Amino acid sequence: MEKYVIGLDYGSDSARAIVVNALTGETLATAVQYYPRWKAGKYCNPAINQYRQHPLDYIEVLEGTVTEALAKCPAGTAEKVVGIAFDTTGSTPAFTDATGTPLALLPEFAENPNAMFVLWKDHTAIQEAAEINKLAKEWDVDYTAYEGGIYSSEWFWAKALHVLREDEAVRRKAYSIVEYCEWLPALITGVTKSDDIVRSRCACGHKAMWHEKWGGLPSEEFLTKLDPLLAGFRERLFEKTETADKPVGTLSQEWAERLGLSTDVVIAGGAFDCHMGAIGAGITPYTFVRVIGTSTCDVMVASYEDIGHSLIRGICGQVDGSVIPGMIGLEAGQSGFGDIYAWFKHVLEFPIRNILGKTTVIDKETRERLIEETICNIIPELTREAEKIPVSESTIIATDWMNGRRTPDANQLLKGTITGLTLGSSAPRIFRALVEATAFGSKAIAERFRSEGIRIDNVIGIGGIALKSPFVMQTLSDVLDMPIKVCRTDQACALGAAMFAATAAGVYTKVEDAQKAMTSGFAREYFPNPENAKLYQEIYEKYLKLGEFTEKELFC
Amino acid sequence: MEKYVIGLDYGSDSARAIVVNALTGETLATAVQYYPRWKAGKYCNPAINQYRQHPLDYIEVLEGTVTEALAKCPAGTAEKVVGIAFDTTGSTPAFTDATGTPLALLPEFAENPNAMFVLWKDHTAIQEAAEINKLAKEWDVDYTAYEGGIYSSEWFWAKALHVLREDEAVRRKAYSIVEYCEWLPALITGVTKSDDIVRSRCACGHKAMWHEKWGGLPSEEFLTKLDPLLAGFRERLFEKTETADKPVGTLSQEWAERLGLSTDVVIAGGAFDCHMGAIGAGITPYTFVRVIGTSTCDVMVASYEDIGHSLIRGICGQVDGSVIPGMIGLEAGQSGFGDIYAWFKHVLEFPIRNILGKTTVIDKETRERLIEETICNIIPELTREAEKIPVSESTIIATDWMNGRRTPDANQLLKGTITGLTLGSSAPRIFRALVEATAFGSKAIAERFRSEGIRIDNVIGIGGIALKSPFVMQTLSDVLDMPIKVCRTDQACALGAAMFAATAAGVYTKVEDAQKAMTSGFAREYFPNPENAKLYQEIYEKYLKLGEFTEKELFC
Repeated sequence: MEKYVIGLDYGSDSARAIVVNALTGETLATAVQYYPRWKAGKYCNPAINQYRQHPLDYIEVLEGTVTEALAKCPAGTAEKVVGIAFDTTGSTPAFTDATGTPLALLPEFAENPNAMFVLWKDHTAIQEAAEINKLAKEWDVDYTAYEGGIYSSEWFWAKALHVLREDEAVRRKAYSIVEYCEWLPALITGVTKSDDIVRSRCACGHKAMWHEKWGGLPSEEFLTKLDPLLAGFRERLFEKTETADKPVGTLSQEWAERLGLSTDVVIAGGAFDCHMGAIGAGITPYTFVRVIGTSTCDVMVASYEDIGHSLIRGICGQVDGSVIPGMIGLEAGQSGFGDIYAWFKHVLEFPIRNILGKTTVIDKETRERLIEETICNIIPELTREAEKIPVSESTIIATDWMNGRRTPDANQLLKGTITGLTLGSSAPRIFRALVEATAFGSKAIAERFRSEGIRIDNVIGIGGIALKSPFVMQTLSDVLDMPIKVCRTDQACALGAAMFAATAAGVYTKVEDAQKAMTSGFAREYFPNPENAKLYQEIYEKYLKLGEFTEKELFC
Repeated sequence: MEKYVIGLDYGSDSARAIVVNALTGETLATAVQYYPRWKAGKYCNPAINQYRQHPLDYIEVLEGTVTEALAKCPAGTAEKVVGIAFDTTGSTPAFTDATGTPLALLPEFAENPNAMFVLWKDHTAIQEAAEINKLAKEWDVDYTAYEGGIYSSEWFWAKALHVLREDEAVRRKAYSIVEYCEWLPALITGVTKSDDIVRSRCACGHKAMWHEKWGGLPSEEFLTKLDPLLAGFRERLFEKTETADKPVGTLSQEWAERLGLSTDVVIAGGAFDCHMGAIGAGITPYTFVRVIGTSTCDVMVASYEDIGHSLIRGICGQVDGSVIPGMIGLEAGQSGFGDIYAWFKHVLEFPIRNILGKTTVIDKETRERLIEETICNIIPELTREAEKIPVSESTIIATDWMNGRRTPDANQLLKGTITGLTLGSSAPRIFRALVEATAFGSKAIAERFRSEGIRIDNVIGIGGIALKSPFVMQTLSDVLDMPIKVCRTDQACALGAAMFAATAAGVYTKVEDAQKAMTSGFAREYFPNPENAKLYQEIYEKYLKLGEFTEKELFC
């Protein structure tokens, strides 16, 4: 008998649902919907980097995408759905009341951004992150140790403390705190008590300083020393966390009706998008999976025997079971990748927007058409021209720190550099140097894994750039001097969620088996050109020197 | 009785004649003409940096500009002309026969580029310059000592040797070698023997390794060791050189007729454009005169008592009498200034030329009009936006070595750098950093003069950028932390030539008196903003660090 599962991938702007054959991995239907309030710009203030999302956005899009996707499937599909799993952005926490309901769903908090989910990229808690880092370094236990040693303003405790300090109403009503990827499973399984919410190993281990070594979350002493406002939360939060292959329950009567599914449908634990994406991409131990878009999220898994509790220096986190249950998930990433190309594109747009945009030689409509046409073609045209330049002519050297550096050794104060410029340095030559710089940044991460004893056997790429830019991927392969496979699916995160759903529903006993059966396969493999790889090794040495100089002498 | 003089300024692309009242400095008329063969691209090969100019171009333009300028003057002006002087580009040498005639004027050499003047920017003699440098360092006398210690492929001996090696016909016919600024005075005074050509102190001292300390030109042993092909030239060249205030003769019958002037007109010695430009700009001892255009040529004069034979390290040359007779002329300069802004403009043109340039949305004529309009406005629009950014936000730091570095310490291997880049680094912010970088390069030259014991009392700017960009000049004033005066005349070089003409003709006993009487005055003075000057001092320290790193670690 056929069995289907639904993978739900909740991104920054939209969510997608895919209906997948749990035995073959075949995708029957996909539906994508944008968060309506978010799209209208509500509850955000980019001037202070405040980004909040209303839980109603998530609820509406959940119902919308699932019913839309199912409607595209053959009749009878819904009856054969056996599991659902969610992946979401993170850390994206919200305060809840004692029933586990995010405060913004209560009428008195319906329009209060502090009662909503604080999106991963919200940077309002910079001060609180600094306080956490300071205290952690003074404390007898460094609770940031397994999160790369530097706590970020984008994470759980910094955000929670910032909201508590800022909003007395939230402070009075708040019972506990929930991550987005934990709340959605709780919502549709009908959880009515905050204490019953199943906590995500991935979210808590990577962002909430949860580790079994110190008995779960940081101690009450640490938290109240940070700020007495945090008193009592630890007790009301959790001790245990679960991996995403474990069922957290079955569909509630209400949600079975809303989605047109049975109450037998099993709901898996939630996790962050990149981690489930790595599963969907076919991660195995010692495979370097890279989600390559505006920035990169890099995921590896290694065996407990190989690593144990030893610390991998300068990466973003290491958590037992955050990717493959029973193994240690390792997270790293580049703060800027496609964003760096977009920055250069934006620089080149200047005459188009500021001069052509004001011309009176043509009418407004033609002008806008020309501007759009020109701007849309900048990256493709730069790519066409940059591809023609041989590596032997790569004399411009850049660093990829225009958005700081996440890995290795997070440092948000760093800035980007372009050197080797001559009067003949054309836009495509500069673009090529930027592409090489992002590849060198990737190599620096790979080298760090290796120098910390984590070997890399394979590289897999997913995400927009992996699928759309052969030039970037070939350069990356040449610089890493390794082949890179690119997944066939453009929905690796949702497919990974579907694999967890199938495992939680008992179709497979472990997620590795789901991976094997449900893989999308690879669309393409890039192989390094040995000559280019050799030339790039020399340029990489200069990239390291240049980076070391700017880090030590200019941006400290 | 009124007296007039004619200043002739021969630039890279065109020449200009100005008719000036020798008593007041008032300009009666100006005429500009382009070199016809040069404008048609003849005798050049940019792919190998071969740039040659035909002596007929100079002759035709001489007659053309002088008669055109005189025709614009009130009737009777020509009869009152008492002197003529030339300044030209340099080092721009040509081979001559025994009559002093450049070989290209002989029928059999009329189309041979090797028989023509080798323009200053011709770089075909890189190999020969390297050989000269090598030998000079091994020799008991370093003949490059007063030319900054590094001989350039743009200079006299390197070019002469290159042509001799390359062209047997020239080799067989060549009797001597002449600089452009020496040949024009010889031509119109009717010189018929190479040995009678009066040699320019400025040209020979700065570019031909002439110095009285070693009895004139480098020894025959040195030259023949360099290449036996040079044997005999030293003997047929010259021992003595003259400053430009000395008359070299009077107008020949032929040229008096061609120009419509009397044979009593006195012809002054020739010199390079920047040196006469410094005179026209009002140079006095310890005034830093900067000709600011695509690159800069910086001129200072210091007293013999202050310097004597001691070497000023890392500048481009020091020659007794090359600017003000009786004092030591010092030359320095930046390899790139306005060219660096033009480079950035060219980078920004990419989408306009490569994408908008191919659009079919509008017709060809409209397209070309739009492209031209957009491109012409890039620098003005960048300037408008960059000017609004306070110095406190200058976090992008650049070096100005996109065309190598001329002073201090010439190094053509150096390349430019831009650092401090973030995803918010807009085109105007980058442009501002480039303007600051060119100002830091200027400060490095000023600091070198000071550290070598040459004080700077005043700064005067002439040239295109000095007159046209208040933003650049204000930044330069802030960075140098000194006021900068900008000459009223946009023909400082031709005016300087007119001052030498008046002195040679006996209107004044020395060129300093001509300067006082004939000055154009100043159009504007820029004063440093003390707060900005303080901020720039800090950024300048980083500029030095950045430059030192790239020089020592990347481009060596």
